[in-house]
Amino acid sequence: VHTARVTERTRIRRLPEKARTDTSALHALLDAAKVAHVAFVDGNVPVNIPVASARDGEGLLLHGSTGSRLFRTLAAGVEVCATVTLLDGLVLARSAFESSMHYRSAVIHGTATPVTDKVAALRAMSEAWMPGRWETLRPPTAKELAATMVLVLPLTEWSLKISDGQPEDPPEDLDAQVWAGVLPVVTSYGDPVPAPDLRGDPPLPAYLADWRP
Amino acid sequence: VHTARVTERTRIRRLPEKARTDTSALHALLDAAKVAHVAFVDGNVPVNIPVASARDGEGLLLHGSTGSRLFRTLAAGVEVCATVTLLDGLVLARSAFESSMHYRSAVIHGTATPVTDKVAALRAMSEAWMPGRWETLRPPTAKELAATMVLVLPLTEWSLKISDGQPEDPPEDLDAQVWAGVLPVVTSYGDPVPAPDLRGDPPLPAYLADWRP
Repeated sequence: VHTARVTERTRIRRLPEKARTDTSALHALLDAAKVAHVAFVDGNVPVNIPVASARDGEGLLLHGSTGSRLFRTLAAGVEVCATVTLLDGLVLARSAFESSMHYRSAVIHGTATPVTDKVAALRAMSEAWMPGRWETLRPPTAKELAATMVLVLPLTEWSLKISDGQPEDPPEDLDAQVWAGVLPVVTSYGDPVPAPDLRGDPPLPAYLADWRP
Repeated sequence: VHTARVTERTRIRRLPEKARTDTSALHALLDAAKVAHVAFVDGNVPVNIPVASARDGEGLLLHGSTGSRLFRTLAAGVEVCATVTLLDGLVLARSAFESSMHYRSAVIHGTATPVTDKVAALRAMSEAWMPGRWETLRPPTAKELAATMVLVLPLTEWSLKISDGQPEDPPEDLDAQVWAGVLPVVTSYGDPVPAPDLRGDPPLPAYLADWRP
């Protein structure tokens, strides 16, 4: 059984009952999300950038450009704190104070390093975001590979919080005649919008039907 | 016309054609999102926490607890970088390299300070997340107010990037017989799930029909 290594900076102090230490729950969140917020210290200023991300085994892949100053700073080995959050719903309690949100949030500390096999990493990211599509596309060119940076952040020092319960109103509030419960957030893909420069009549790929945002 | 104050740390270097400087676009994003990722330096370590957020005029309200060590650190006036991102779709190009995402992302630098009128701020947040509900709930108690911390981060030094275009494949890729276009992400609320301890038969509030996640 894989569990989180709890350190001083990953120990959850607030609402510890929402803390989760099972790696499977971490993986499920990282597989469901496509964006990580990656924070680091640049000089003495905190910087926090959204980065396209995908899990590959025990690492979080981060997709960027070799032309990006911030990404080069990451690659140089600065400490990062990458946070991945999905909002899953609203918790409507009888009071504003007890109202809250359903969410899943992972906080990962470490340093990100360039992957050794860039094509394999790009394929893994493509399959995570757009399963089935990679093999229908031409392979990346040498120039494209040179312009792309893929970093991997190991999933070793992390914490995970999941809020998925019903409102927990105190007894004295339960007689209030106000509706209480959970309003789930539902995310889906809408109708595909063809590119205006589409040539010929390539069919809509069948794999789209299986994609989930 | 309000526009962003562009400083060395908010000047967008990567994909500057996606940069936006109109305050109305910033406000629209902050109004549509409910979570900010707030990064700061704790000791010499970057910390990045998801915080429930709502815009109030020219400030971003951040909701936390007086019992939170990290929130007390924020309130002490450390520099923060708060980033708010929404994923709006996938851009399916003819190559993996040109494939990308639709997103809106705001990066705000500054320091957050406790609001002067906590009840007004809580009401503003409630109205942002759950419009119409505040007036149907009992007012907060003194104890609840003491346990709640609301900070405001001024919207003065920020950058905004919006990616909302179609794929931009080079001419030599346009004859590839692969479907290309945009797959929009659609977010909605699902069916409300009543709290199991609901007493009486309070009706489902009419305002729920107008809420958008």
